[in-house]
Amino acid sequence: MADALKEIGCNKCFGGFLKRYQHQSDSVQCTMKFQVYFPPGAVTEKFPVIYWLSGLTCTDENFMVKAGAQRVAAELGVALITPDTSPRGLNVEGESDSWDFGVAAGFYLNATVEKWKNWRMYDYVTKELPQVLAANFPNLDTSRASIMGHSMGGHGALTIALKNPLKYKCVSAFAPICHPINCAWGQKAFTGYLGAEDKSKWEEYDATVLVERYNGPKMDVLIDQGGNDQFLKDNQLQPEAFVEASKKNNVAVTLRIQEGYDHSYYFIATFIEDHLKRHARALFS
Amino acid sequence: MADALKEIGCNKCFGGFLKRYQHQSDSVQCTMKFQVYFPPGAVTEKFPVIYWLSGLTCTDENFMVKAGAQRVAAELGVALITPDTSPRGLNVEGESDSWDFGVAAGFYLNATVEKWKNWRMYDYVTKELPQVLAANFPNLDTSRASIMGHSMGGHGALTIALKNPLKYKCVSAFAPICHPINCAWGQKAFTGYLGAEDKSKWEEYDATVLVERYNGPKMDVLIDQGGNDQFLKDNQLQPEAFVEASKKNNVAVTLRIQEGYDHSYYFIATFIEDHLKRHARALFS
Repeated sequence: MADALKEIGCNKCFGGFLKRYQHQSDSVQCTMKFQVYFPPGAVTEKFPVIYWLSGLTCTDENFMVKAGAQRVAAELGVALITPDTSPRGLNVEGESDSWDFGVAAGFYLNATVEKWKNWRMYDYVTKELPQVLAANFPNLDTSRASIMGHSMGGHGALTIALKNPLKYKCVSAFAPICHPINCAWGQKAFTGYLGAEDKSKWEEYDATVLVERYNGPKMDVLIDQGGNDQFLKDNQLQPEAFVEASKKNNVAVTLRIQEGYDHSYYFIATFIEDHLKRHARALFS
Repeated sequence: MADALKEIGCNKCFGGFLKRYQHQSDSVQCTMKFQVYFPPGAVTEKFPVIYWLSGLTCTDENFMVKAGAQRVAAELGVALITPDTSPRGLNVEGESDSWDFGVAAGFYLNATVEKWKNWRMYDYVTKELPQVLAANFPNLDTSRASIMGHSMGGHGALTIALKNPLKYKCVSAFAPICHPINCAWGQKAFTGYLGAEDKSKWEEYDATVLVERYNGPKMDVLIDQGGNDQFLKDNQLQPEAFVEASKKNNVAVTLRIQEGYDHSYYFIATFIEDHLKRHARALFS
């Protein structure tokens, strides 16, 4: 696996290095790109990793370009990992017809509909990518990991953390799609990837259903949500449903409505430092 | 003029607001866009302004998306202003044939070649834009202004400050094109916009010539230059020429070679806080 990983980009940034890689993925059977921000530090140091899952239309690059997170990661001594948002280049018929389905819209699930069988971003993010990191980067400590994301990536972070409470030491989200089985984006995606017949498959990837059923160790979840977010108004996000469902069990959700903020990376940039510090506390504790 | 300005974008960001505007420009005779970051503050407060001039291929948006400057501007209580890099939409024959000439390559000069007569970005940035700001935004104090930029925009910042030492209280640059009459980018641009006949016209927009001839009040200039910048290696930037020329007079240049950094916004993001704090000290002194 080490031989298969190819470095395709490198920028020095806040004393560390932002590197971009590509590799042939087993999970999704195509070439996948991802980025790693390595904070400055001694060669012998091992950095915990924070996975960032991006939203619809994004690639592995948006977060590193726009969020201003490297500055904070450099200070905290944590590595940042940004996977892509779907398989690419497979030429599945219709894969690029919509901005909210197919390419750049993987929804961090394992598709069961034959046509979309390569859309296995859940396996890619939770299993293959950590293995690739562990195999290639002795200075990353993938046993100390946490996860966060935005919008579709917030949905990804919440569902993945709820399904793997021992794998991630912290989870938070910006404007996550909290209840996809009950919103237009989610219904379109889940119908396409999971089929319309068996709705129990949908529930496996719905953060609100998962948090209601959660019976793992105590978990804290931080959600920042812009109060002026058009997609909140359009009912795509539904953070209240998630908060309500969380009350029945061992998950403590902090939902902060940030007045005046929208769905953009300007919102994320404003609050990313707070999220990263929270993650670092968990990763170093 | 106030009626002509139209707000076309607004994002809350670090407690303040990033706003995008368009207006019909007298200087360049087309619709121009620019952005303003208003830091948080009382309605009655008046903020000094820092102009950021972007490099080749950029628009008014790149800096605000990528540099992470709003965080610092919010803390310091300064406004950030990003003009576009050239006129657009004039359909001058060949205006988009090159990435380093025409559209997005205005070089912050006033063209004298008839074909490019609308390329008057020097007038736009130094005269019209400050007037538009003063006329429309009572909370911007354009009498307290400073200027900085990157690459072609670093050239713009240096030349504009050297030609207008009383107008700008501070100047700094990231990887500026310091000696355009002596590099490929500059020679192409100046030949096109100013003609090849009279080289004295070129010297009016060459920072190294201008700093050598400077006879204004004492001026400090900070330049950060990535040591791993491909365009430094390609001889497009030539900061040493600028430093050498500055030694003969009343300009103190601090040139910092930042080892390992390239020409990208990751380099700018790393050092922007230091530049902004330096500017704020001058603006508030």
